[in-house]
Amino acid sequence: MTKYVYDFAEGGRRLTDLLGGKGGNLAEMAGLGLPVPPGFTITTDACRAYLRTGREPYGLADEIGLHLERLERQAGRRLGDPADPLLVSVRSGAKFSMPGMMETILNVGLTDATVAGLAARAGDERFAWDCYRRLVQMFGRTVRDVPAGAFEPAADGADAAALRALTGQHLRAFREHTGDDFPQDPREQLDQAVRAVFGSWNAERAVLYRRQEHIPADLGTAVNVVAMVFGNLGADSGTGVAFTRDPATGERGVYGDYLANAQGEDVVAGIRNTMPLQDLEGRDKASYDELMAIMTKLEEHYKDLCDIEFTIERGKLWMLQTRVGKRTAAAAFVIATHLADEGVIDLDEALTRVSGAQLAQLMFPAFDLSRGPRCIATGIAAAPGAAVGAAVFDARRAAERAATGTPVILVRRETNPDDLPGMIAAQGILTSRGGKTSHAAVVARGMGKTCVCGADELDVDLHKGQFNVDGHVVSEGDVISIDGTTGRVYLGEVPVQPSAVVQYFEGALAPESDPLLRAVDRLLTHADRRRRLAVRANADTARDAARARRFGAQGIGLCRTEHMFLGERRALVERLILARTAEQRDAALTELLPLQRADFTEIFRAMAGLPVTVRLIDPPLHEFLPPLEDLAVKVARAEERGEDPGHDRELLDAVHRMHEENPMLGLRGVRLGLVIPGLFAMQVRAIAEAAVAVRGAHAEIMVPLVGAVQELEAVRDEAQRLLREIGVVARIGTMIEVPRAALTAGDIARAADFFSFGTNDLTQMGWGFSRDDVEGAFFTRYLELGIFGVSPFESIDRDGVGRLIRIAVDEGRAARPGLRIGVCGEHGGDPASIRFFHEVGLDYVSCSPFRVPVARLEAGRCAVTAAGSDTR
Amino acid sequence: MTKYVYDFAEGGRRLTDLLGGKGGNLAEMAGLGLPVPPGFTITTDACRAYLRTGREPYGLADEIGLHLERLERQAGRRLGDPADPLLVSVRSGAKFSMPGMMETILNVGLTDATVAGLAARAGDERFAWDCYRRLVQMFGRTVRDVPAGAFEPAADGADAAALRALTGQHLRAFREHTGDDFPQDPREQLDQAVRAVFGSWNAERAVLYRRQEHIPADLGTAVNVVAMVFGNLGADSGTGVAFTRDPATGERGVYGDYLANAQGEDVVAGIRNTMPLQDLEGRDKASYDELMAIMTKLEEHYKDLCDIEFTIERGKLWMLQTRVGKRTAAAAFVIATHLADEGVIDLDEALTRVSGAQLAQLMFPAFDLSRGPRCIATGIAAAPGAAVGAAVFDARRAAERAATGTPVILVRRETNPDDLPGMIAAQGILTSRGGKTSHAAVVARGMGKTCVCGADELDVDLHKGQFNVDGHVVSEGDVISIDGTTGRVYLGEVPVQPSAVVQYFEGALAPESDPLLRAVDRLLTHADRRRRLAVRANADTARDAARARRFGAQGIGLCRTEHMFLGERRALVERLILARTAEQRDAALTELLPLQRADFTEIFRAMAGLPVTVRLIDPPLHEFLPPLEDLAVKVARAEERGEDPGHDRELLDAVHRMHEENPMLGLRGVRLGLVIPGLFAMQVRAIAEAAVAVRGAHAEIMVPLVGAVQELEAVRDEAQRLLREIGVVARIGTMIEVPRAALTAGDIARAADFFSFGTNDLTQMGWGFSRDDVEGAFFTRYLELGIFGVSPFESIDRDGVGRLIRIAVDEGRAARPGLRIGVCGEHGGDPASIRFFHEVGLDYVSCSPFRVPVARLEAGRCAVTAAGSDTR
Repeated sequence: MTKYVYDFAEGGRRLTDLLGGKGGNLAEMAGLGLPVPPGFTITTDACRAYLRTGREPYGLADEIGLHLERLERQAGRRLGDPADPLLVSVRSGAKFSMPGMMETILNVGLTDATVAGLAARAGDERFAWDCYRRLVQMFGRTVRDVPAGAFEPAADGADAAALRALTGQHLRAFREHTGDDFPQDPREQLDQAVRAVFGSWNAERAVLYRRQEHIPADLGTAVNVVAMVFGNLGADSGTGVAFTRDPATGERGVYGDYLANAQGEDVVAGIRNTMPLQDLEGRDKASYDELMAIMTKLEEHYKDLCDIEFTIERGKLWMLQTRVGKRTAAAAFVIATHLADEGVIDLDEALTRVSGAQLAQLMFPAFDLSRGPRCIATGIAAAPGAAVGAAVFDARRAAERAATGTPVILVRRETNPDDLPGMIAAQGILTSRGGKTSHAAVVARGMGKTCVCGADELDVDLHKGQFNVDGHVVSEGDVISIDGTTGRVYLGEVPVQPSAVVQYFEGALAPESDPLLRAVDRLLTHADRRRRLAVRANADTARDAARARRFGAQGIGLCRTEHMFLGERRALVERLILARTAEQRDAALTELLPLQRADFTEIFRAMAGLPVTVRLIDPPLHEFLPPLEDLAVKVARAEERGEDPGHDRELLDAVHRMHEENPMLGLRGVRLGLVIPGLFAMQVRAIAEAAVAVRGAHAEIMVPLVGAVQELEAVRDEAQRLLREIGVVARIGTMIEVPRAALTAGDIARAADFFSFGTNDLTQMGWGFSRDDVEGAFFTRYLELGIFGVSPFESIDRDGVGRLIRIAVDEGRAARPGLRIGVCGEHGGDPASIRFFHEVGLDYVSCSPFRVPVARLEAGRCAVTAAGSDTR
Repeated sequence: MTKYVYDFAEGGRRLTDLLGGKGGNLAEMAGLGLPVPPGFTITTDACRAYLRTGREPYGLADEIGLHLERLERQAGRRLGDPADPLLVSVRSGAKFSMPGMMETILNVGLTDATVAGLAARAGDERFAWDCYRRLVQMFGRTVRDVPAGAFEPAADGADAAALRALTGQHLRAFREHTGDDFPQDPREQLDQAVRAVFGSWNAERAVLYRRQEHIPADLGTAVNVVAMVFGNLGADSGTGVAFTRDPATGERGVYGDYLANAQGEDVVAGIRNTMPLQDLEGRDKASYDELMAIMTKLEEHYKDLCDIEFTIERGKLWMLQTRVGKRTAAAAFVIATHLADEGVIDLDEALTRVSGAQLAQLMFPAFDLSRGPRCIATGIAAAPGAAVGAAVFDARRAAERAATGTPVILVRRETNPDDLPGMIAAQGILTSRGGKTSHAAVVARGMGKTCVCGADELDVDLHKGQFNVDGHVVSEGDVISIDGTTGRVYLGEVPVQPSAVVQYFEGALAPESDPLLRAVDRLLTHADRRRRLAVRANADTARDAARARRFGAQGIGLCRTEHMFLGERRALVERLILARTAEQRDAALTELLPLQRADFTEIFRAMAGLPVTVRLIDPPLHEFLPPLEDLAVKVARAEERGEDPGHDRELLDAVHRMHEENPMLGLRGVRLGLVIPGLFAMQVRAIAEAAVAVRGAHAEIMVPLVGAVQELEAVRDEAQRLLREIGVVARIGTMIEVPRAALTAGDIARAADFFSFGTNDLTQMGWGFSRDDVEGAFFTRYLELGIFGVSPFESIDRDGVGRLIRIAVDEGRAARPGLRIGVCGEHGGDPASIRFFHEVGLDYVSCSPFRVPVARLEAGRCAVTAAGSDTR
């Protein structure tokens, strides 16, 4: 028969799945001989059975009875004993901490019959009635859903009689709202409390929390039944929380708060001011010393920062909880290296104690919110960071204003490639439409620029150059602050703290200058030593390339060439598109050639011999023309006024001719190269000539959107002829971003020197949704429904898109042993995705320069932890 | 050592790969003891080696020499013998017939030294010089690329002296253009001629032809060297072609043409009038009788219609060629059944002698072109048939005019769902943009309506209501005729012949009324008996459903519901989209419910208990609103005029709000159902209530665009609740049209009662191109480059998309044994794709009603032929 109840002596943290975090750790402490009040834990198995069937599993009641008897023996008191009643707490405790999400009921065991006994034992009638009052209230609200307002609050300094009267009111309120008397049988109280805790697993807020935190919905909670100890029995009693190190900075030394004559809830509620834990030494040296010894013991045992809750009942110390403590990102790095310094753990283990997400957090500047700035809207936190500037509603004006030295925030309904100069010039980008993978978000993340998108409360009027929100009007020039880590938008200027970690990567701060930088330096160095995955950067400019190198990139995995067609060159691209003859087309290409060559020359210089993978032009050419609607309206207005639309008419005709219903699935990538003679050849020539110009340049040519080996062969043959002609050796490889490319990877590998997964497109085509269109529209709903745990644009979808990747890796390598394979989609910088890429055996990931250190760290962690053993 | 040359006595048609069609069949006839001139065949192996290396393979020259000696012995003459020279023909002969594509050189062996010998032997000097002149001209053009104009033409009735002089001119012209003397060594002539035939395999027109006919590029051609026989040696000589049955109707009885005193080329060139073959009996009974006996023998041997070429040289009959003869589609059916009647072949074999493509051809009306109508443009033959009507440039006006009884052709730049009423009303559809899978083409094929699309010579001006082409202006009301089988557009009315086969399917003609109908009936009945694949139809209306049943559909595999949202109901859909509150939304849905229920009721009635698979609404809702550009221009014009755009402004805002960059990858299908509360529920309720109303109705509910099992589960759970509530049992299944659905089919099968492949979307997403956008833009180029053999929207891409289908079938059935799986994309009616679906083990295909007989026939053929053994 399944065992549903574990005495603390039977458990331990190895049983966390069954006993929850709290129960496992209480048992662990009991096993270490620490002063834990007697108690037992009802397992998550029992909870799951209850949730499945709606009643306690067979045998549970008897088992609780047996453990209750043992508890009574250990405590030396019996439940319901009128003379000296045992009181217990009933607390939830799931595998993963869900703070504040679930239920606790204290003082179970108090009844009309036992309250006097408690008063006698405590020598304090007021205390006893206060306990009883609290029980009725907590039990009423938690177990029977009595509204909070039904219970009158206790007056400050109420005496025993007043609390006794208040208890009477509570008992009547309970009866009124439930139709039942408050249970006077302590065991009945216990059983109902246990059921209520079970049920709280499926409370709405708990469900929501789990979804947000990606905690599986079917784990269930354990229930801890523990003998009550009281910190509110006078000046020699009290309660506190403590950390074995500073959880904010990671510095060594105990850190905690103590509150005399109080219960744990009072500390949490913050009703009274606590004292620093150190002050306890003066009040109760024995307890203090015992506590210090216990904390040392716990840290030795857990080999990590622990946090604890304790209570002193009339001079006797009781440990109520411990766990590996939460900490800030900075503290995580410092603690991990300190523990390694102290020889408690080795560097491999230290590496597992920090995460890429934490490092990313440390790399963004942050707002100082101490002065309470005014938050006017909250959008999607698309690209972290803190940016302050004058709101500007037009990309050109943003660039102009920025050129005069004014920091600007570019505000748009959504952005497109035309806005790029404005985005580059701006401190941050704010949009009212689009999700985490909208154009604004993706480009901003790529540039390491702060972005809040999809702030749909904003009513953006581009013509007037203003937005309305919540009664405020923000016009061009008004200063706003946007927080890309929280999605918040503030009115006015909020002070910003720069990131020391970035300054260190940039070479502006030495690692010795700060314990955090020393820790980051040490762990990244170790990660670099350990990792199997190489890390490259996605960079399109010499500036980004240089930064990527400073941040530790081992090459450029994706150098997009379409950005090189913007700005002043747009006129050339327009000529290319409007060309009516081969001569006109070739003339435009001939003028583009030296410009592209100069771009590549700069980038090859910046990378000084490291590999640079250049992707031939990918987007549909009509993206370089003005939007259809704008042109159509312009032409219509001109005609309506009786004017000649002139060049706009010609442009509109071209846009009409080239219009695509689904441009993502249109004439782009390799298709463009095969349809427009000379386009790819011009690019290949520019690359080759630049490679000749830069000594030691290491160019690789990558063909986008290949779906069939024949496409790649056609482009490769032409490119190889050109390379031979110019006398340059360069690998020629392909993106794997169309599902068919993955499905026929064995064929494609025959013509490819390397593969690079374009996981954005692969995700879009694998799922059949466009990141621009659907994320806002239905991702929220899908997350709510649990269809996604996390957006597949954020972390790779292992089952679907990941399967395509596995197929391509396996069959590509089978056809061409030693084939080099990387990834250059957004996922290359996502920790969970990096683990997947490590597992399937890629050679490298490539991500935005700012993500390079994150990827280095994660790749190191993957190398030192077995697959799947990652801690939450 | 490889054997490169086969004497006719060594070959046979089993060696067609090596000897080509012509060589194999000559050897076959020789083996049957028929009078074939002596000769030999140089293999395709030799050709491939030559093309690979640029020279004859080692040993070939010697082998030719040996076979030449044997030929000389058999012919009793020697090459270059001045007294009685042997002349030979050198002809290409590939595995697959490529008529007119490759080279032939006659009279090889004539030189200055041998021409007199030929004259003496023939007793005809004029004849000898004519032969020599022809050789120099043919050799010059074929072997040495001398332009045709370099050789003066022969004057009518030129005598021997004139021809001798002309030969002199030809020899000089040869020298002038090549710098070489015409080779006077007969063996040198032969070797050069063989090389020229080898090389002609890669001539531009041959390459193009192979690409169009999907003939592999690497087969190479064989070369036949045969002793010349002459039909132009006087009245007792002649040449002819014949068929063992009538290749036009299939009727029994020899059918052919004869030309006295002529060579084969003269028959083909049509310079002189031929006589019916029967007339030969009176002229030369012995040869005629011999020929009849040979034809009987050939048909017995080949068990099929044969065509032959023969020559009579001074009363002696020679067989120059035979093969299984080409025939019209009608003849194919009639001959196959006749052969079965005659006991020559069984019905299984008869089924393999016809094809779905032939049946499809028989189902379309055709133009009678005998009066030479004026062709003004040629577009893409998108949906076969012949349609005549008044050109109309607006869907609404098309419907109005059609309602008054005027047949119309709807002419548009391209079509969209708004044009549907006009398309339904029109006889045919003509567009200037879009390819075979554009909206116009797909919808037209679905409706069995004639369509020519992408006729880009037409300059369509919708506002003026006219198009210009080649100097003609066609205005609304002008009658045009369009041929969807050839893509031709004619000015004026061209007479149309209706399809008897369709009338038979419709029940208007009895099979006994015509040999063709009897043949079709017999073979389809046999196909139905044999096939494993069930055949259903895609039908959205009761009318289509009824037709589908008449055409033999065993159910409806795809009943789209979006067409039910058009017409007068559009106002309701607009209300649904513009709804600001749940009440407004529900009110619109409540009004849609009875309309949808009525639609389903009619369809269930029409299908009388056969299964009807209803697909819940799939397209993005904004497709039901006016196009963005039109609205924006309308609003801009109104504003420019100082008017209030009113409702248009509201609509424009809605269109902006709902605008998607890539609607195909946007908020559609199951996503719509999960995001818009009540939409799918309304549809499920309408289906269920209709099923209750129609006794024996067999409804199946299909969810579109599922990519994850969770999506399907969410929809299924709600639908099942509703079905239970209404008391209806219906299977609930899913489209497999998103790559991820195929990749996770094992999971999805747990929640699906059936799968139906949506191969259009699966192809679009698997390849990453949208059929609307790319087919015109680059498919032509891709076909030219050989990247596609055939558009993947026409025939399923076995390697990529087909692999997804295999994965889904295997893993779906593994997870849920007995899972029913079908296909309902356009490919369901394509013969090559049907074979694939048969091979992977689908349960059914579903296609447009007009394709149902084609699918039945093809499914039957699949069942009686082993995979891959299909004949071209």
